[in-house]
Amino acid sequence: MSERIEPRVLKGFRDFLPADELRRREIVRKLEEVFLSYGYKPIDTPVLEYSEILLGKGGGETDKQVYRFNDHGDRDVALRFDLTVPFARYMARYGRELPLPFKRYHIGKVWRGENTQRGRYREFMQCDFDTVGTGHPDADFETLMLINDCFEALRVGRLTIRYSHRGLFNIFLETLGIAGNAVEIMRTVDKLAKIGEEEVRSSLTGLSGEKAAETILEYIRIEDDFDSTLEKMERLAAGEKDAAGDAGDTAGNHAEAPAERLRRIKGMLEEVGIGDRFVLDPSITRGLDYYTGIVYETFLDELPEYGSMCSGGRYDNLAALYTKQHLPGVGASIGVDRLMAALEELGEKASHRDVPDVAIINIDESLAGHYHAIARALRREGLSCDVFFEKRRIPAQFNHAEKLGARVALICGEDEKKDNAVNIRDLIKRESYDGLHLSEAVERISRILNGPT
Amino acid sequence: MSERIEPRVLKGFRDFLPADELRRREIVRKLEEVFLSYGYKPIDTPVLEYSEILLGKGGGETDKQVYRFNDHGDRDVALRFDLTVPFARYMARYGRELPLPFKRYHIGKVWRGENTQRGRYREFMQCDFDTVGTGHPDADFETLMLINDCFEALRVGRLTIRYSHRGLFNIFLETLGIAGNAVEIMRTVDKLAKIGEEEVRSSLTGLSGEKAAETILEYIRIEDDFDSTLEKMERLAAGEKDAAGDAGDTAGNHAEAPAERLRRIKGMLEEVGIGDRFVLDPSITRGLDYYTGIVYETFLDELPEYGSMCSGGRYDNLAALYTKQHLPGVGASIGVDRLMAALEELGEKASHRDVPDVAIINIDESLAGHYHAIARALRREGLSCDVFFEKRRIPAQFNHAEKLGARVALICGEDEKKDNAVNIRDLIKRESYDGLHLSEAVERISRILNGPT
Repeated sequence: MSERIEPRVLKGFRDFLPADELRRREIVRKLEEVFLSYGYKPIDTPVLEYSEILLGKGGGETDKQVYRFNDHGDRDVALRFDLTVPFARYMARYGRELPLPFKRYHIGKVWRGENTQRGRYREFMQCDFDTVGTGHPDADFETLMLINDCFEALRVGRLTIRYSHRGLFNIFLETLGIAGNAVEIMRTVDKLAKIGEEEVRSSLTGLSGEKAAETILEYIRIEDDFDSTLEKMERLAAGEKDAAGDAGDTAGNHAEAPAERLRRIKGMLEEVGIGDRFVLDPSITRGLDYYTGIVYETFLDELPEYGSMCSGGRYDNLAALYTKQHLPGVGASIGVDRLMAALEELGEKASHRDVPDVAIINIDESLAGHYHAIARALRREGLSCDVFFEKRRIPAQFNHAEKLGARVALICGEDEKKDNAVNIRDLIKRESYDGLHLSEAVERISRILNGPT
Repeated sequence: MSERIEPRVLKGFRDFLPADELRRREIVRKLEEVFLSYGYKPIDTPVLEYSEILLGKGGGETDKQVYRFNDHGDRDVALRFDLTVPFARYMARYGRELPLPFKRYHIGKVWRGENTQRGRYREFMQCDFDTVGTGHPDADFETLMLINDCFEALRVGRLTIRYSHRGLFNIFLETLGIAGNAVEIMRTVDKLAKIGEEEVRSSLTGLSGEKAAETILEYIRIEDDFDSTLEKMERLAAGEKDAAGDAGDTAGNHAEAPAERLRRIKGMLEEVGIGDRFVLDPSITRGLDYYTGIVYETFLDELPEYGSMCSGGRYDNLAALYTKQHLPGVGASIGVDRLMAALEELGEKASHRDVPDVAIINIDESLAGHYHAIARALRREGLSCDVFFEKRRIPAQFNHAEKLGARVALICGEDEKKDNAVNIRDLIKRESYDGLHLSEAVERISRILNGPT
């Protein structure tokens, strides 16, 4: 044998052992069920695209975060670094054949050559969902309701979804005459939860002077309730009625004033009975350029330090880089890896189904065909079964079954076979049930699996 | 707006529109259910690996099929071209902490810069499953049973799984004294179904002379039944009892003669009641170097021209390149894209669940909150609902609902809301049911969805 190669993986990349992969798949499955229940449809796009598509013409030459190379045909290509840009390209290609509004979700890996010292991964999984082709405020509302339902399905405990309106904030900055500094101001405001009001005040004063800083701090403060917060925002952005930041829908309607949109959305959240999880928080701005309307972030009440689990907002035009079709939309993105970490911290380990449910112990290799026939029957009843190939000492097999995650062991010898019976053992409670017919065994196993651990 | 970028994708790469992506996810979901029911566990590995890992030391320098490049850290990296090599590396890394035998499945994309003119894709999805860490013949049997159950779950109609034993074939060639030509001989034999016996005879004669060619043709012929085929193979490979090609298990046992293994496997297939789908076919050799025991291919009886849908075999040592741990195993691989094409041809379109089930028609935008509350109630009953955002003419909304794939429309105006009622319309049968209470509506919708289309 020649010299062996060290089985290493690239820094920032990960193998998933079965326990983690089972958990990840369970999370993805639950999210998908919610998306499908709203009529969102899945799509997929290539992992590899022309660099021009992902980075824009000539752009990104210096972007070290992008995995970019020339392929064997000397094409300039790159691995996707998010799911938004490929979706924009996708809608430019199919936007005229898909019925609009189009509601899609997309779950897949993306790659960024980030500095791994900050605990970041270079390969990670994103989950995006968007409604495009409409500027209707109810699409904004539905997105918020969907976010709520996703996290309800994941059983993460209480959550708070903080939202505001980027268009209204822009109008406010214009009214103050400091819209030119908008990017820096939003970046500073975004840090409020992290660095506190005093630090923000000092940064804002440096950017826009003391008076403007005080007005901004007043604007981003949460008041006693929705109405007083929104009225304050309206007052400070005086004149906002003329210049809505929202896109019209396909027919050009619904370019309502931002405050009116927020009132409609708030009313509908109340009407469907989930209003208590939502907070109008004017400090939410989502620094990214392309948002023009509502913006939101999602926090777990038990784990606020994890930051936002799901963020997004409304944009006026998704795919302007690739098509002249006007495609307003609203959507959000969930970082699956951060979510996994949070769920682990919350102790939601019991939520995923491990396999097998049942280990069939091998006490006579000449009965193997019978064991596999039993396994086949149990599988038909929805039970996962692992038949052990080798006859070994029974305690060793029990031990192996527990290591695999099996809750129940099934034992069957020549005598039991003759009696058309099996013996069952609860591996956790260490209780045995002998001489059961197969239908009795199925019932007993189900009771064990659904009972307390 | 500056010049627009054409929204193209790379040759050999594909976007998936919702209908195809729903189908693909349904196939993957069904396969996963079967794997999990056998106690196979999912894993994941990075898409990108060191080239040394994927191609071996210094190897593959000229392999144009591999997407290989230097990353920003100037590491020589490549996109995985199959799931076998990453699994070997994975087992070298975790083989001493995972309980053996380890049964895993892995479903993911792989990339090969193949010539797209032959209708091949450069990005496609593989589905691999293996049992490693045992040489036991029952693991071979279980793999065959699992393949059968996978295709049963997919409802592809009758299938035939053809299997043989690579070790026995090698012994046969040694007996003939032509083992040196094994690779070319196997490549020729593999083409039997495609090019016919005469062509194979002429190629074999060129390779090994007329007499050997006749003996090989005799060897690879299927006789009247399993016993006579196997007896013929044994006779022609006379002396095979000494030199089994199979690996021992972890304890070094079970290095039985290949023919004995095949008899045990055959007996167990009969015992669990699926023997009729399996044919001992000595022309199956799976040219790939690393197989040492049983080999198999899976054909759909209605679509033999699609070739094998699932192939694999037993190998003596999975990860010798990366570890000294001896890891015999057995497994198979399903090409998900070929399977999708076959299922489409078989007309299995009805098998995937489209969304939404129900479109909620908007006849009054001031009732939108009520519509979404209804949707929420229907979703709790497992129904997928899409609430239309905009009030438009009802026929236009029915039309839109049909385009989305909805089977049922739900209509509710101010009067119905007062009566706590809704109206339902079967969009295919064009029948209406008016004034139903919500629980009645749920029942009616379920009946429509489960009825004939």
